[in-house]
Amino acid sequence: MLVHHLYSGGKDSSLAAWILTRLGYDVELVTVSFGLLDNWRFAKETAERLGFGHQVVYLPREILEKAMEMAIKDGHPNNAIQFIHERALEALASLPEVERVSDGTRRDDRVPFLDLPRARSLEDRFNVSYIRPLLGLGYRTIRELTERLFVVEIRESEELQKADYEVELRHLLREKGIDPITIFPRGHIQSRVLGWKEEPGME
Amino acid sequence: MLVHHLYSGGKDSSLAAWILTRLGYDVELVTVSFGLLDNWRFAKETAERLGFGHQVVYLPREILEKAMEMAIKDGHPNNAIQFIHERALEALASLPEVERVSDGTRRDDRVPFLDLPRARSLEDRFNVSYIRPLLGLGYRTIRELTERLFVVEIRESEELQKADYEVELRHLLREKGIDPITIFPRGHIQSRVLGWKEEPGME
Repeated sequence: MLVHHLYSGGKDSSLAAWILTRLGYDVELVTVSFGLLDNWRFAKETAERLGFGHQVVYLPREILEKAMEMAIKDGHPNNAIQFIHERALEALASLPEVERVSDGTRRDDRVPFLDLPRARSLEDRFNVSYIRPLLGLGYRTIRELTERLFVVEIRESEELQKADYEVELRHLLREKGIDPITIFPRGHIQSRVLGWKEEPGME
Repeated sequence: MLVHHLYSGGKDSSLAAWILTRLGYDVELVTVSFGLLDNWRFAKETAERLGFGHQVVYLPREILEKAMEMAIKDGHPNNAIQFIHERALEALASLPEVERVSDGTRRDDRVPFLDLPRARSLEDRFNVSYIRPLLGLGYRTIRELTERLFVVEIRESEELQKADYEVELRHLLREKGIDPITIFPRGHIQSRVLGWKEEPGME
């Protein structure tokens, strides 16, 4: 039972990947990239430290450009991030070998988040199962599991070398002469997993 | 890390209990009863077969009577089931030894189901974590896990000896001279777990 799991190297997507293994799934981590930067390497590095298989799926640059336009129009990145995430799930789900897709979205996330009709639509259009291991967990539960499992580095997102959509979106904004600080909220804290704190089996 | 998990003996609440153990939690199964019937014994029997600790928490009969009035007024049990489930979670969460409560509610359930504000309210009012291991799983994922793990008996709910809220609600309706068939949809399929199909650790 193989699951293709969207992976940024952060603690949420790492925790979700671990939960999938605990449920008996084989987990292939997938990081999406638009080919602007090679920041997917941070996710690959973390995947290797945690012992997971990892691959990169490239999405068309037009998706990032459309997302950037949305972010500029809104003055806020939420709709752009949501847009990218939906396209990333669709790209993954449309691969012929993929039967199950997964991500690290949480109950308390505003974006990215697929509501029930969208989640079902993804499953029906691509004939896949869509699994969100963190959806039923609140922040306290996620924190207690994460603290037990992972060595985590936490910094402001602008500083942190990581592999989420935001990094290439910020880069493209800068290329167009727009300071990302006008779009992204200040002081947004991001995390990156550096390795296991204890053995994943816990027995 | 102890979780008190609302348990009916059905496959959803059994699967959720198994997931909790896989996440490293100690799991105490709890079946609520209004003291009308001893159908909680079916849940206890299944809990013992699966190797979990089990206890019964009695709720005031007024809750069941109010739920019955709701069901009669609506001509449908959904609001009544929702009402009972919220009171059950609150009763559990209010016990002094309880830090984490859990249930087997699913992404695709209409009732019982706590929306995000209600889930957060439960956590805040009682200072507990509320964990729903099945919330991020669709019916296909639940089916593939359940089929791998459990020997399950599936029947029409009227026939099946089980320990969910519905059984005492139907009983109280009959006591008041009301045929439950006028309230509950026909052909509602229920399940009861009889035991493990394979070892819970799967290693």
